[in-house]
Amino acid sequence: MYDLAMSAGARPLLERVRRFVADEVEPMQEKFFALGEGRADRWSFAPGQLELLDGVKARAKAEGLWNFFLPDATTGEGLSNLDYAYIAFELGKQPLASECLNCSAPDTGNMEVLERVGTPEQKRRWLEPLLAGEIRSAYAMTEPDLASSDARNIACSAVLDGDEWVINGEKYYISGAGDPRCKVMIVMVRTNPDAAAHLQQSQILVPMDAPGVEVLGPMLVFGRDDAPHGHMHLRFTDVRVPRDNVLLGEGRGFEISQLRLGPGRIHHCMRSIGAAEKALQLMVERGLAREAFGKPIIALGKNTEVVSRARIEIEAMRLMVLRAAKAMDLMGNADARVWVSAVKAMVPERVCQIIDQAIQVHGATGISQWTPLAEMYTSQRTLRFADGPDEVHHMVVGRAEIARWQHAAPPREA
Amino acid sequence: MYDLAMSAGARPLLERVRRFVADEVEPMQEKFFALGEGRADRWSFAPGQLELLDGVKARAKAEGLWNFFLPDATTGEGLSNLDYAYIAFELGKQPLASECLNCSAPDTGNMEVLERVGTPEQKRRWLEPLLAGEIRSAYAMTEPDLASSDARNIACSAVLDGDEWVINGEKYYISGAGDPRCKVMIVMVRTNPDAAAHLQQSQILVPMDAPGVEVLGPMLVFGRDDAPHGHMHLRFTDVRVPRDNVLLGEGRGFEISQLRLGPGRIHHCMRSIGAAEKALQLMVERGLAREAFGKPIIALGKNTEVVSRARIEIEAMRLMVLRAAKAMDLMGNADARVWVSAVKAMVPERVCQIIDQAIQVHGATGISQWTPLAEMYTSQRTLRFADGPDEVHHMVVGRAEIARWQHAAPPREA
Amino acid sequence: MYDLAMSAGARPLLERVRRFVADEVEPMQEKFFALGEGRADRWSFAPGQLELLDGVKARAKAEGLWNFFLPDATTGEGLSNLDYAYIAFELGKQPLASECLNCSAPDTGNMEVLERVGTPEQKRRWLEPLLAGEIRSAYAMTEPDLASSDARNIACSAVLDGDEWVINGEKYYISGAGDPRCKVMIVMVRTNPDAAAHLQQSQILVPMDAPGVEVLGPMLVFGRDDAPHGHMHLRFTDVRVPRDNVLLGEGRGFEISQLRLGPGRIHHCMRSIGAAEKALQLMVERGLAREAFGKPIIALGKNTEVVSRARIEIEAMRLMVLRAAKAMDLMGNADARVWVSAVKAMVPERVCQIIDQAIQVHGATGISQWTPLAEMYTSQRTLRFADGPDEVHHMVVGRAEIARWQHAAPPREA
Amino acid sequence: MYDLAMSAGARPLLERVRRFVADEVEPMQEKFFALGEGRADRWSFAPGQLELLDGVKARAKAEGLWNFFLPDATTGEGLSNLDYAYIAFELGKQPLASECLNCSAPDTGNMEVLERVGTPEQKRRWLEPLLAGEIRSAYAMTEPDLASSDARNIACSAVLDGDEWVINGEKYYISGAGDPRCKVMIVMVRTNPDAAAHLQQSQILVPMDAPGVEVLGPMLVFGRDDAPHGHMHLRFTDVRVPRDNVLLGEGRGFEISQLRLGPGRIHHCMRSIGAAEKALQLMVERGLAREAFGKPIIALGKNTEVVSRARIEIEAMRLMVLRAAKAMDLMGNADARVWVSAVKAMVPERVCQIIDQAIQVHGATGISQWTPLAEMYTSQRTLRFADGPDEVHHMVVGRAEIARWQHAAPPREA
Repeated sequence: MYDLAMSAGARPLLERVRRFVADEVEPMQEKFFALGEGRADRWSFAPGQLELLDGVKARAKAEGLWNFFLPDATTGEGLSNLDYAYIAFELGKQPLASECLNCSAPDTGNMEVLERVGTPEQKRRWLEPLLAGEIRSAYAMTEPDLASSDARNIACSAVLDGDEWVINGEKYYISGAGDPRCKVMIVMVRTNPDAAAHLQQSQILVPMDAPGVEVLGPMLVFGRDDAPHGHMHLRFTDVRVPRDNVLLGEGRGFEISQLRLGPGRIHHCMRSIGAAEKALQLMVERGLAREAFGKPIIALGKNTEVVSRARIEIEAMRLMVLRAAKAMDLMGNADARVWVSAVKAMVPERVCQIIDQAIQVHGATGISQWTPLAEMYTSQRTLRFADGPDEVHHMVVGRAEIARWQHAAPPREA
Repeated sequence: MYDLAMSAGARPLLERVRRFVADEVEPMQEKFFALGEGRADRWSFAPGQLELLDGVKARAKAEGLWNFFLPDATTGEGLSNLDYAYIAFELGKQPLASECLNCSAPDTGNMEVLERVGTPEQKRRWLEPLLAGEIRSAYAMTEPDLASSDARNIACSAVLDGDEWVINGEKYYISGAGDPRCKVMIVMVRTNPDAAAHLQQSQILVPMDAPGVEVLGPMLVFGRDDAPHGHMHLRFTDVRVPRDNVLLGEGRGFEISQLRLGPGRIHHCMRSIGAAEKALQLMVERGLAREAFGKPIIALGKNTEVVSRARIEIEAMRLMVLRAAKAMDLMGNADARVWVSAVKAMVPERVCQIIDQAIQVHGATGISQWTPLAEMYTSQRTLRFADGPDEVHHMVVGRAEIARWQHAAPPREA
Repeated sequence: MYDLAMSAGARPLLERVRRFVADEVEPMQEKFFALGEGRADRWSFAPGQLELLDGVKARAKAEGLWNFFLPDATTGEGLSNLDYAYIAFELGKQPLASECLNCSAPDTGNMEVLERVGTPEQKRRWLEPLLAGEIRSAYAMTEPDLASSDARNIACSAVLDGDEWVINGEKYYISGAGDPRCKVMIVMVRTNPDAAAHLQQSQILVPMDAPGVEVLGPMLVFGRDDAPHGHMHLRFTDVRVPRDNVLLGEGRGFEISQLRLGPGRIHHCMRSIGAAEKALQLMVERGLAREAFGKPIIALGKNTEVVSRARIEIEAMRLMVLRAAKAMDLMGNADARVWVSAVKAMVPERVCQIIDQAIQVHGATGISQWTPLAEMYTSQRTLRFADGPDEVHHMVVGRAEIARWQHAAPPREA
Repeated sequence: MYDLAMSAGARPLLERVRRFVADEVEPMQEKFFALGEGRADRWSFAPGQLELLDGVKARAKAEGLWNFFLPDATTGEGLSNLDYAYIAFELGKQPLASECLNCSAPDTGNMEVLERVGTPEQKRRWLEPLLAGEIRSAYAMTEPDLASSDARNIACSAVLDGDEWVINGEKYYISGAGDPRCKVMIVMVRTNPDAAAHLQQSQILVPMDAPGVEVLGPMLVFGRDDAPHGHMHLRFTDVRVPRDNVLLGEGRGFEISQLRLGPGRIHHCMRSIGAAEKALQLMVERGLAREAFGKPIIALGKNTEVVSRARIEIEAMRLMVLRAAKAMDLMGNADARVWVSAVKAMVPERVCQIIDQAIQVHGATGISQWTPLAEMYTSQRTLRFADGPDEVHHMVVGRAEIARWQHAAPPREA
């Protein structure tokens, strides 16, 4: 449980990923964003953008820097959760790094679900092109009219009509659904309203171009649309998909969401550590570069202690993420659930604080387009409710702790 | 010092302002923003927008709900700082309310400076149309390459050439400078580089259309451009203005900034209280409207305590703002400086926290375009460094406290 | 509501109290504590101690500096809550000041209850000697086996047997019950176990020397016994008192506790402000007197900001306490309940933090017998659950706020 | 760096220690403290106490559960810092466990210093009986009149007079110096006032019974004297010891203190984790055992989240302590200094908070003699300045981080 070192086999990968990000991703990224500025249609790519991105993706695939996120895959790909964590820390420092290595959300979660529970036909049609990086996907769970903190709160309905599901309802903040390359989504629906609360839901594969799927518009993140990726507001009106599009089986939607959320949540947290590292670096560099009252800002008042606390918390979070990844490797996603919740409750809240402090050291420049800090902040802020709000994860951890003493369980292993 | 009640004379005004905001401002505001959406040129108003706004302004002026911010004006306008505080709390709840009553920043600070230290000619040319609400103005202090926490950090230079100042340099985050109605700005420049640190600066009136004034583009606030108001990045290249455009006198720029910042800072804080009230209301209403685990969200976990702490802190901040306003009324802006810093260090930080908690109760909707919370958050966040970062205001308060005991002063009056 | 100034009539009192504390209480206090050290019996006074104390009390009474705590008393004594607050701030700075002016807990609460609801006989027997400072008293509510956060949690029973109540049960942390001058206590008992939850309790006057009252020993406060005042653990075994000793009437115990707790709670908070002022002064003085790394400690790192935050919070707390006192004066204790809870939830928590920070600036000396800080800390820490834990007061404030929006009440008056 | 697992060789020890503490230490401890209560002379042991203690110590030594703290000792004893950490977590849960295994401060630090830098004669005379558990020792560094945050602040002087050092000065909070078994102390003195600031100090062995050593009295910890261990206030008046009693060499006192403080600090933190675990257990057990408003307290309001945050922080601290121990094992105490400071700045502050929250859940019982929480709190509180205040450790961590970016160092290894 406490051996958190990267495996000897994976270690060389880390160095190769670092070099690849520095040599390939960063230069491409700059050109990619420059091309995108001021394009006429925000919901498509500008000419040349996809060529740039696909070129780097092709090189990553050719070099085997690809699909690291999928542990124990029958396809032989993927690293252990622990090994992947070290790589994901790096990917979190650059916005396009994850996508270049085919390790970006929400595809990773969708691929893991398909790999674990998909039928051969589902795998052939959707998993293969996703693993190949040819298409992208979305995951449609949250609804505008219900509290998402309770994952069983689903109103969007699917009713069997012969051999087809007929879907009606609304979903919002469907990340990636604005991307023209997004071809499929996994939709959480209510199929069994009369069953027990956790057996009412199913997850169904819905092609983006299915008739009746309507993009009502983008949901904004502190005013940002993140086009063309986007966080879309969707309406389903009598959308029909084959009966076989259901994943794992009717009424097992909540079960799948438990399965998927483990890795997804922890991948977010791994990348958050990278973001916090970046913010701390920017904070110190800025604090060294500007003077006030005859001293570099970083030496004034509490700033050195702010730096210290950030460093201490980053190291603590890093270790906790590694610990949770190890728990998933050893115990499986379900049994590692409390560790995952612990990390999900801990990391985004503190990373937001660290970025916020970096902003404060920058003054107005910190919220401007001249540093990545404002966008980093708003992205991390969404993680405090995406995949379950902090409060729900604290409830999971708190209740598990209380249960230990309630049942007079033997002391936990150290 | 502790009589913080509104004066009997001003009390009826508060009710009239409330009614005016509800009956006139709110309905107009909705139409105003709807007209502005999707307009071709973000840096001008859409047809019909200004007509709406000017109509309400005219009615406000006709009803005497106008220019409340200017205490002890020779023109007879204005309320005491304490009375104004009560009104400003209300104005903080609606984005256009301040402007409709000609009480919006940065005009208020500029008008107060002109009223206090302007020459008759300066007053005629700029103060009169500002008091009449016919033009708008900007205040250009912050520079992109220097830490703004030290107000004496000014590189933008003005050199006398005959009867003209020749100005060269850069300023950024110049709020309101994008508005086509903005006709003049007060620019902080360095005129006496060899003088003592606090005597090197002057403040000079510069018409927006002076040759050599170049708008390099908008600075964003967490990705938002706030067009057409805007927070502009300006370059001054050999800009020439008459010698008489200097305010108060050469080398007195720092002195003026001390004068102006008192009221400006506290006006921000007054409006922040209003924003916090609004956020608390939205938090409770949302928490009552959504259920999870069979209960309204507001009754789950720590939420009731979050509400309690928000209410307690809002009341404490309100009293502190009133106390600081009273101090300004009794002691003058200079001597009330520690009170103003206390409030400026206290309020925006806590208001940001309250809005952030309201966001958390809303989930994803809290950061979307469907509530005002995201925009409220980013606006309030800028106040943690605008007009001096929190850290500088804590330095002012902390040093004043230390000085009390250093000099073995008699105990402060209760 | 917002006129928080001391009344003109009471103002001269404040100065007189300050002088009296400085000239009479402080010098006596030093001798008093010196006499008490190392005395053989911790639960009685050393020879000479009471003579010292009674001498100062007699002078205070003669000068009219006496019984300030009792507003609107038919006896004509007492100040408004607001006026008393200013005086209580001063009393909080010296441990014996309150007692010297006959304004110390728990007598104040007991006297207020007796004055409000006592029968003429009860007043003659107990209120008169208490108002005269001849005896002291205790209030026995908390029980060792039940959560005190719910004030209706009472197991100690009283059963009528003819004309007598027969009391059985245990109480603990009964402050002042160790003092040999303590002659009576008000005991919260359960008399009507079958009534509704808030109608089961009664409050009964029990002489300390009633047969069957047994002092099991002192409860410690972080190891301190506070002898001879003490916080005693009592057992009642078939204690018999006359039927008329019940206050107000059978089943009205909870009602009385609501009545008494308002003033008691806010008096604690008033004195807490004084303690915080004292701690801040000690923090700054120590920080100025010691050097490290070539600078006075107070100028190092975050310390100036710590001082600033303490000053800001003290002022905010002071205003909130005044506001709550004013609310009690205007609305009565019952209707001012939310204000009282707001202050009780706010003040002790923050005062503990301020004292803790003063300790940190002192290093080891801060927890030693060489400064009052350690004792101040542990005293204030008890206030976070005495008279209801913070959590219950936040519940009161939070629920009141939620109710405002639940019932779509009109906006609160400013 | 990230393999934080206990070594296979040491693992069986952990189980044996757990059993020994449960079977031997806990029952003895209860009797030991009962015997000590009310003894006439607080500064000696009651009859029978030492026999109990020595019995258990003898059994521990016989079973090889002894002197774990000394890594890489030439005597062959001791575990790696990492392995010891796991054991120290356990020892932190019971007050006498460390002493029974001869692993208690300040002896551990003194033994480590003697082992590392002692002369053969110094080892024979002092190290051997210490390793055997026959005597105890003290470490005299802090002085009442100087800020201890700067470790070079030493006024106590030692002057060579022939072959003897003559020592004059004062020390306070000398833990363990009240114990009659304490036979020697290491005293930090100033020997070279004219040298550079970090070369002025020396460390000298002084027998407790040397003429001129005077115990002025105990320093209290929040009113507690911790007799007979004690934290004594000492005066040195012309105390003479042989020239050879200096450790390592004249002027090398600061160097030794850097050496000793690494292990000492981290041992404290290891035991603090154990204390936090104990507090969390007590908090949950109490919260389950008491009801209010019809529910167990632990399920009310924020309490479940408080439990969750405590669990998360304990795990994060545990990992950080293991990480720092590993750093000491791999890099040596000097190079692991930043890791040690990180842990010392992080752990006691948070452990205090966790204990404080456990107190709050207990209500008045939490600060009473009926739970260990009050004593745990005050003990942990002293760690926030013992061996350097939090602020100094944050300075070490913050400056190291700033230096990384100042010198454009390559990115830290993950």
